[in-house]
Amino acid sequence: MSKEIGITVKKAENFSEWYTQVVTKAELADYSSMKGFMILRPYGYSIWEQIKEHLDRRLKETNHSNAYFPLLIPESFLKKEAEHFKGFTPEVFWVTHAGDNQLTERLAIRPTSETIIYDAYSKWVRSWRDLPLLINVWNSVLRAEITATRPFIRTSEFLWQEGHTVHETKEDADKEVMMILEFYRQLLEEQSAVPVLLGYKSEREKFVGSLYTTALEAMMPDGKALQMGTSHNLGQNFAKPFEIKYLGRDEATHYAWTTSWGVSWRIISAIIMLHGDDRGLVIPPRIAPIQVVIVPIYYREGDTAAIAEKAAQVSDQLRKAGLTVHVDTREQYTPGWKFNEWELKGVPLRVEIGPKDLEKRQVTMARRDDSKKTMVPEDTIVQEVTRILEDIQKNLYARAKTALDGSISTAMGYDEFKRVLDQRGGFIRSCWCGVTECEDGIRTESGATIRTIPLQPESTFSGCVRCGKPATKVVYFARAY
Amino acid sequence: MSKEIGITVKKAENFSEWYTQVVTKAELADYSSMKGFMILRPYGYSIWEQIKEHLDRRLKETNHSNAYFPLLIPESFLKKEAEHFKGFTPEVFWVTHAGDNQLTERLAIRPTSETIIYDAYSKWVRSWRDLPLLINVWNSVLRAEITATRPFIRTSEFLWQEGHTVHETKEDADKEVMMILEFYRQLLEEQSAVPVLLGYKSEREKFVGSLYTTALEAMMPDGKALQMGTSHNLGQNFAKPFEIKYLGRDEATHYAWTTSWGVSWRIISAIIMLHGDDRGLVIPPRIAPIQVVIVPIYYREGDTAAIAEKAAQVSDQLRKAGLTVHVDTREQYTPGWKFNEWELKGVPLRVEIGPKDLEKRQVTMARRDDSKKTMVPEDTIVQEVTRILEDIQKNLYARAKTALDGSISTAMGYDEFKRVLDQRGGFIRSCWCGVTECEDGIRTESGATIRTIPLQPESTFSGCVRCGKPATKVVYFARAY
Repeated sequence: MSKEIGITVKKAENFSEWYTQVVTKAELADYSSMKGFMILRPYGYSIWEQIKEHLDRRLKETNHSNAYFPLLIPESFLKKEAEHFKGFTPEVFWVTHAGDNQLTERLAIRPTSETIIYDAYSKWVRSWRDLPLLINVWNSVLRAEITATRPFIRTSEFLWQEGHTVHETKEDADKEVMMILEFYRQLLEEQSAVPVLLGYKSEREKFVGSLYTTALEAMMPDGKALQMGTSHNLGQNFAKPFEIKYLGRDEATHYAWTTSWGVSWRIISAIIMLHGDDRGLVIPPRIAPIQVVIVPIYYREGDTAAIAEKAAQVSDQLRKAGLTVHVDTREQYTPGWKFNEWELKGVPLRVEIGPKDLEKRQVTMARRDDSKKTMVPEDTIVQEVTRILEDIQKNLYARAKTALDGSISTAMGYDEFKRVLDQRGGFIRSCWCGVTECEDGIRTESGATIRTIPLQPESTFSGCVRCGKPATKVVYFARAY
Repeated sequence: MSKEIGITVKKAENFSEWYTQVVTKAELADYSSMKGFMILRPYGYSIWEQIKEHLDRRLKETNHSNAYFPLLIPESFLKKEAEHFKGFTPEVFWVTHAGDNQLTERLAIRPTSETIIYDAYSKWVRSWRDLPLLINVWNSVLRAEITATRPFIRTSEFLWQEGHTVHETKEDADKEVMMILEFYRQLLEEQSAVPVLLGYKSEREKFVGSLYTTALEAMMPDGKALQMGTSHNLGQNFAKPFEIKYLGRDEATHYAWTTSWGVSWRIISAIIMLHGDDRGLVIPPRIAPIQVVIVPIYYREGDTAAIAEKAAQVSDQLRKAGLTVHVDTREQYTPGWKFNEWELKGVPLRVEIGPKDLEKRQVTMARRDDSKKTMVPEDTIVQEVTRILEDIQKNLYARAKTALDGSISTAMGYDEFKRVLDQRGGFIRSCWCGVTECEDGIRTESGATIRTIPLQPESTFSGCVRCGKPATKVVYFARAY
């Protein structure tokens, strides 16, 4: 592989440029000629498909169904929930014409679909028998980005799922919010090897129009937090203006309780940043579109057929065991070139089959996470591949978890807070008075925001980190993407 | 089931109203408050998922990959292929503002994505080694409908897939176009039991900007044709303005050849119209989200547990055989109410388990397509269900195929042509001079258009059906949706 094709900067030296190179050179995504918009290329899309399949299965197992709602939302709908509208309006793309005709009302391209979905729910929900109503949507949403765009992190359009549920009581809605939060945790930690802090958002940071927001926050190697997903209890804030009412078991009419929740292709950015190295991407096996790549190594003419046959045999065996395998039979590239390319693309395990392997009735395996090579006898290939993939999955998670835990500092005073933030970033665990003014001050003065308020409150250990007044909560601050 | 919940008109008496009632009462879709836009409800979406899964698998088996491209397209891109732009511009939704800022260039919400995709391809394609480039996209596109909307047939937004491929030669592009046409035929005829006529479109009817268009046309019970899918060879018409060039095996630079092709949720409308009856929807088993519904029938308190257990056993058995089964355990509805509901929803086979069935170690099966009931001994349930589902699939296709074949008339003169069209509709097989003027005349005078020109030319048997001059082609006319 030539220098231009491989990554030309070191992750530790120029993290931002390294990220861009991995995204584009591993062909995950490309910049579009539409400023602010990204193209999700086939390899990147196949990772997104893995994420989708996992979460979709969990949602269906728990009686959620998929549906599709219109892309365009009348301006009057967005305005029905005033806070919600205020929150999104600066980012909305507005449609004003259809063909040559000016529209009588401006239409928003959905920045999120609460309003148009709840308009439909108000027609569908009549009785407690219709509840819970559990619907999920896989779509794209648009929010105009005025600042610099970053693939998978900040683009004017992104792929995500948005779930929207309706319940009889606040308690039912609470349970839904927490169940989804746990699904997201599993998707992130167990599938994607992305460890997270779980918690509530502050009033300032919560979803506009929600009663409360829960979120999952990961920590990137540059010391900045990355919000990975949110799950909101919307209370009756949307049910009231949209008139989602039901006849209860008590034969009286009640406003319903709604939740909404989402994760996006941003998960892919955390996988890149946490696991990638100077050679490129490293994809956790459970989320990898290709788990094993087999590279046949032809040196002498006479071996070619036998090696090709062995490669096909091994791939068959592995596929039967439920693994996704690619055999790289291309003739125009050398084995070395192929090794580099599949390392750039982050395939967790490479199996090499050369003349020597054939003779010794073995294959050579090379792990992507620690570059270790082992020779494996033919008759234990399936067991070994399975074992190594599990080990890679564990290892990637353990490394990232150690980094996350190590990124957490505790600060009692404001000078210490700012010093730690500037020196090493990461999460800073501090006590807070609970007043939005102090939160705003910290944001303005340091650039840090409250990322999470732990689900299980921690005991305060000092006064408010900024004002020194009695603290009400222990919270986790960080600078964030 | 109360009268309002069931279908209140007969298919033969008020086809249009019947269609609307099936769509909304079977909860496939709902009208949105956004005029012209439709909501795809969970049950409708689950049929769409069946369609997607089948086609997606075929495409992946033949090395196509999924990807995602931006929703918005700069006006200048659309203008690059002049005919293409002219064809779509009356239907385009235009974005003019982001937040409070007016955009410097208007952005089109994609009516189809050729232009933005080919802009990217021009960067990705360098050498013959990069070809063929085979990408598919599952997304929604928007085309403003000024006439009356009809769910699944004519809406301002629809879900579809659009495939976009790049090839070295015209022959390679031809092969791709025909392979996809065959995949679509299989999806329609073998999965959805929707028989079709395959053929080319005339110059007037082809996709704007294409070299030629192939299409699949179905015939609805009201005598109108419904276009089910198209597969286009775009020649070099887009490659030239978008500069998709490659270094050939001959070391010279060549413009590439591109194809595009698509099917949409419209397939669902053909399933509804062809197979549905006065009781509602009838879904072909291979595309049905629920293939078998089990309704336990509780009369006496004492039987309940034993019947529930038997229902669970039977569903387990069927699921293990790879079938999708739903057990309707709801207690607030009577068996009769449930029968009606699942018939409305078109589930192909109902299995009833009552006290008598329990005694006799049997179950009762009721087919949705012909309402026949049979008692089946416990130990042959899986074989019988499998056999009956296959038979339903065959029966639905055979009935629809007989109707399609019977809908075809041959007309040699124009009076006959118009009389047949008014009396019975359907396809009219006629000879045509090949001149667009005559084609336009027929459209204006009768409302019929050329639906297909057979892939294998048929021998002409008269002069042009309208002008009487020597004919060049046998073509199939019809009025169409």
